[in-house]
Amino acid sequence: MPSCTFALKILPLVTGRFGSRASCPALAAVRALSCTAARCQLHNVKGTGALTGKVDRFGGVTVNLAEIGLPADISEKSFSTLLQDSLLQWKADGKVAVWLRVPISLSRCAAAASTHGFTFHHAKHDHAVLALWLGEGESRLPGFATHQIGVAGAVVDESNGKVLVVQDKNKTKNAWKFPGGLSDPGENIGATAVREVYEETGVRSEFRSLLSIRQQHNHPGAFGMSDMYIICRLSPVTYDINFCTQECLRCEWLDLTELAKTNETTPITTRIARLLLHGLERGFQHVDLTMEELPAVYSGMFYQLYHRQLPPTLKP
Amino acid sequence: MPSCTFALKILPLVTGRFGSRASCPALAAVRALSCTAARCQLHNVKGTGALTGKVDRFGGVTVNLAEIGLPADISEKSFSTLLQDSLLQWKADGKVAVWLRVPISLSRCAAAASTHGFTFHHAKHDHAVLALWLGEGESRLPGFATHQIGVAGAVVDESNGKVLVVQDKNKTKNAWKFPGGLSDPGENIGATAVREVYEETGVRSEFRSLLSIRQQHNHPGAFGMSDMYIICRLSPVTYDINFCTQECLRCEWLDLTELAKTNETTPITTRIARLLLHGLERGFQHVDLTMEELPAVYSGMFYQLYHRQLPPTLKP
Repeated sequence: MPSCTFALKILPLVTGRFGSRASCPALAAVRALSCTAARCQLHNVKGTGALTGKVDRFGGVTVNLAEIGLPADISEKSFSTLLQDSLLQWKADGKVAVWLRVPISLSRCAAAASTHGFTFHHAKHDHAVLALWLGEGESRLPGFATHQIGVAGAVVDESNGKVLVVQDKNKTKNAWKFPGGLSDPGENIGATAVREVYEETGVRSEFRSLLSIRQQHNHPGAFGMSDMYIICRLSPVTYDINFCTQECLRCEWLDLTELAKTNETTPITTRIARLLLHGLERGFQHVDLTMEELPAVYSGMFYQLYHRQLPPTLKP
Repeated sequence: MPSCTFALKILPLVTGRFGSRASCPALAAVRALSCTAARCQLHNVKGTGALTGKVDRFGGVTVNLAEIGLPADISEKSFSTLLQDSLLQWKADGKVAVWLRVPISLSRCAAAASTHGFTFHHAKHDHAVLALWLGEGESRLPGFATHQIGVAGAVVDESNGKVLVVQDKNKTKNAWKFPGGLSDPGENIGATAVREVYEETGVRSEFRSLLSIRQQHNHPGAFGMSDMYIICRLSPVTYDINFCTQECLRCEWLDLTELAKTNETTPITTRIARLLLHGLERGFQHVDLTMEELPAVYSGMFYQLYHRQLPPTLKP
């Protein structure tokens, strides 16, 4: 009796948020059957189960399939039936959206959910999150992260007007550029710049300011997503070059005046070289966005804020 | 004879990139069997199949499960066997990584892949991408997008020193802030600011400059990811307020001097109000990051570059 076994297994699911809702007919039906406790009678429960979810303040339901006692070997068909019943209930309850958090080992449930209109919202490491909009009109669900953050560091030696530049090993055109790379998850912009400069060139440096931001969509290598490329100004702490031969073909301290006029570079590097020359001559306050750490209003955690420096009289 | 049928179905998979490799033993074995073409003999092919993938210049293999003729009803066990054989082959070939693109309907293959060490790299809409690092040491695979981009617009009426502000409906503290919201995929920063201002307040505006950038990790509402919150300066095109009652509690043109000193706001809004007052008094060139569109070196597509304006004599 496979469907009888299935009904037994899903009983633990119909607890939780429906527990205090006397008006829930599915729950009432399941409760009545739980009382009799006879295995064969449970055979008829099919269609009355409902997935247990957490309701958010926007009227969405989140179900974590790892936390609701789902059988590890639940079939796509069985999960589909269970989800269908739950969807009817959620729609009747006026819920506007459903989120399903699916552990990778239960991925077949994602396939089952897709037959009911669910799509992937995102996936990380060992789980995927699917979503279905039940409300009126177009979905108002927030999207997932859209940008990777690339950071480069322009390490300027103010004593001689030189800047640290590299040529990538894997590019067809050998162009001088500032060392840099992608931010790791949770890494601050300045920390990425300092880390990437060290990994590529062996030079230790300190964060000074943010110089420019470039936004680019459908970026090659960003898996169809967008790229935010940020160039920071850094000050050298050490000067000896010991560059990564896996990533770089060449690495040098180059005169900023030379970098500003050479064709052997990219347009953005030329632009930053000009900004840096202007800064060297007139003071970096003319090109910098300075950084400050402030506590977040709600969480109390610190964030980094970058903007033009205010005159001392206007500072907080 | 289910395994015989399975063997027949996977035969189309062992073509493609291995086609020109005489040294591939799995292919040689399958070729020999293909020649006999007898259904029952194929029963013995089990273990010699290999998934067809595309090899990239970094030594990674990408297999798109939607494009290799995989049976729609392939079981987790069958796919696991197939993948295991392929992994042996790829390791022997010195491949450093494997990417699997899994359509949502074949999600059970993701569960099978996870038993071989694959994890989710990302998922969007109708497919997931899993990855496994085969090279030495720690994985050097690039991550997926890490940041959502939120953009607010500070619409400044230069004729009277007022700025457009709103109070969110869903916050516990009623704080004045600039209207804004999340960038849609592929949307430019300035376009998000103008769109969100219009959607929330009914006021039409034009992009002028970028004023500040805030980076925050583990941002509430970012699904464990990071948030980049950018405030733009906009100029009003229309002035009549017709605010969205679903999102906003209040919406007003407020004196910048008042916004700069009120406690009924957030620290970042106070800071930007001060910057804008400074700009009103001394000229916005003292607070702006201006935007320019430039063609990308490799793709020729345009990107947006933001930095401090260079003096006219230093411009390109």
